[in-house]
Amino acid sequence: MKNVDGHHLTERGIIGELRRIFNSPPPPAGMGDDCSVIGKGPGALLLSTDMLSESTHFVAGMTWRERGRMAVSVNLSDIAAMGGRPVALLISLGIPPDMDATAVRRVAAGIAERAAEFGVPVTGGDTKRTGELTIAVTAVGRAGRRLLTRGGARAGDWIAVTGSLGGAAAAYSAWKEGRRGRPLTALTSPEPRVREGMALSDSGMVTAAIDITDGLAASAWYISRASGRRLEISRELIPVSRALEESGADRDALEEALIYWGGDYELLFTARTRRSVDELAARLETPLTVIGRVGAGSGVYLNGERRRRLDERGYDAFQAMEAAEGRN
Amino acid sequence: MKNVDGHHLTERGIIGELRRIFNSPPPPAGMGDDCSVIGKGPGALLLSTDMLSESTHFVAGMTWRERGRMAVSVNLSDIAAMGGRPVALLISLGIPPDMDATAVRRVAAGIAERAAEFGVPVTGGDTKRTGELTIAVTAVGRAGRRLLTRGGARAGDWIAVTGSLGGAAAAYSAWKEGRRGRPLTALTSPEPRVREGMALSDSGMVTAAIDITDGLAASAWYISRASGRRLEISRELIPVSRALEESGADRDALEEALIYWGGDYELLFTARTRRSVDELAARLETPLTVIGRVGAGSGVYLNGERRRRLDERGYDAFQAMEAAEGRN
Repeated sequence: MKNVDGHHLTERGIIGELRRIFNSPPPPAGMGDDCSVIGKGPGALLLSTDMLSESTHFVAGMTWRERGRMAVSVNLSDIAAMGGRPVALLISLGIPPDMDATAVRRVAAGIAERAAEFGVPVTGGDTKRTGELTIAVTAVGRAGRRLLTRGGARAGDWIAVTGSLGGAAAAYSAWKEGRRGRPLTALTSPEPRVREGMALSDSGMVTAAIDITDGLAASAWYISRASGRRLEISRELIPVSRALEESGADRDALEEALIYWGGDYELLFTARTRRSVDELAARLETPLTVIGRVGAGSGVYLNGERRRRLDERGYDAFQAMEAAEGRN
Repeated sequence: MKNVDGHHLTERGIIGELRRIFNSPPPPAGMGDDCSVIGKGPGALLLSTDMLSESTHFVAGMTWRERGRMAVSVNLSDIAAMGGRPVALLISLGIPPDMDATAVRRVAAGIAERAAEFGVPVTGGDTKRTGELTIAVTAVGRAGRRLLTRGGARAGDWIAVTGSLGGAAAAYSAWKEGRRGRPLTALTSPEPRVREGMALSDSGMVTAAIDITDGLAASAWYISRASGRRLEISRELIPVSRALEESGADRDALEEALIYWGGDYELLFTARTRRSVDELAARLETPLTVIGRVGAGSGVYLNGERRRRLDERGYDAFQAMEAAEGRN
């Protein structure tokens, strides 16, 4: 998309503009967080909406079923990021004229299957004719014991992540090299961390959380800005996915994938004590790894052989598309 | 869209299939109603989602601003149909690569303007790159004193509508004849009956309601099926919009437009007493007109020079597109 001067706008630029046009005052948890929040305290309503479309969000190797599953996963991840329990899904399915009914059924089956795996009913929606397959999902959730926002990190908190990072980046590389099947799982069948998010909320010890689908650096920056604190991350503590480790990427490419590439459906969070992270880890199957500390000040820093301030950038759907034009 | 046998599927056919796939038990008010309902009683949560896309839902004469406005109106109408008070809007905006920033801003301004007119904050959303302009809106509402569903009509109730019918059909004809501007208002700038819906709910006397964007016959059939009652409508009582009356359509075309064409954002409802309709009318600026009675039995009948059972058909976005293929 070009702006009036012919320059390309980034997604963040557009969202910033739209927020001004919509005149949304940033509420306690508003457009800046993964969900909109209505009400207060445990049980407050969480709403997330996301639209995926054929030309932008699905890689060519994905099955119809995976397309449906992913549309649900994206939204469940937003509920998870705020520690919520998903309670309902609404689906708007945009179906192009030349799509055959079997394919539509498979997309729907993928949606239904994913929803059922997380015990969430599909309570409404509609179908529309559109120029390309478009799946818009709205997920409704209820806040847990503590509503997790991006704005609660305090100096002295510990920074941790669920799972490992870089799996989606490695899968994308594999896909570009023409590999298909299992190596792409991280890209085509992401696992939203719903149970993990609920456990973080219920612990009462987690002060801020976000999903890192935009990339680790971008997500850490969101927390840093919303909390008004500095995040210090140790390079050697970041859990690297096996697929990325084995990808043969050189040091720089690996770090770019780990820090700036997005697509991993993991949670980045801050907790008051190291012990609370350990206690949470003991209750979950998914590994939790402490990767740093919150301090006074601002910005996001990576400590390793050399300490540096991370760029405030990450996975941007618009830029990625500019780069990948002609993919397929 | 073709089904496996090469036949064309209607929207209703697809929704029926998807409902089976999603395995949604029809809840007290579920996929069949205009909104999904979460919770019970006054204050229950109403959720509506609708997706509009460039190739299907916008006529060529519409401005960008009108496109944004309409996406909001469609969803507010669903909240209105259940007697709810809209409390929040979530917007997913799909922006094609070649759309310029000024146009995007105008769409967003239309959304913001419409939301503000009804006092509803835009609390969240996202932007995505898509192949064509796509606006998916989720409206959140709270139930009023009485939740209005399609299923509450009882024998002896009075059937009434807000406003007048056929305006959208007349505007569509005008548009096909190449006319632009004011004659198209009913099509390009529909007025959702939010205040009216809230008044119906608060009266405590309204037993069922629906918006008639799918057409009068289809909407009456929805109430008939959901309530297990027969609807008897008097042809001469139906309030005909001035635009349709002056359109020069012959008798048959006029009746087709009035009964089967959709696009009018009016409410069809049933009330316990005629007096309650009059009392409501006295409190609203929008006219309310009694057009018939509910009886025991099933089906929808039109009484006039000759009595006949109305077909269970109406405006179908999929069929309309088949018919209008190649339009502009």
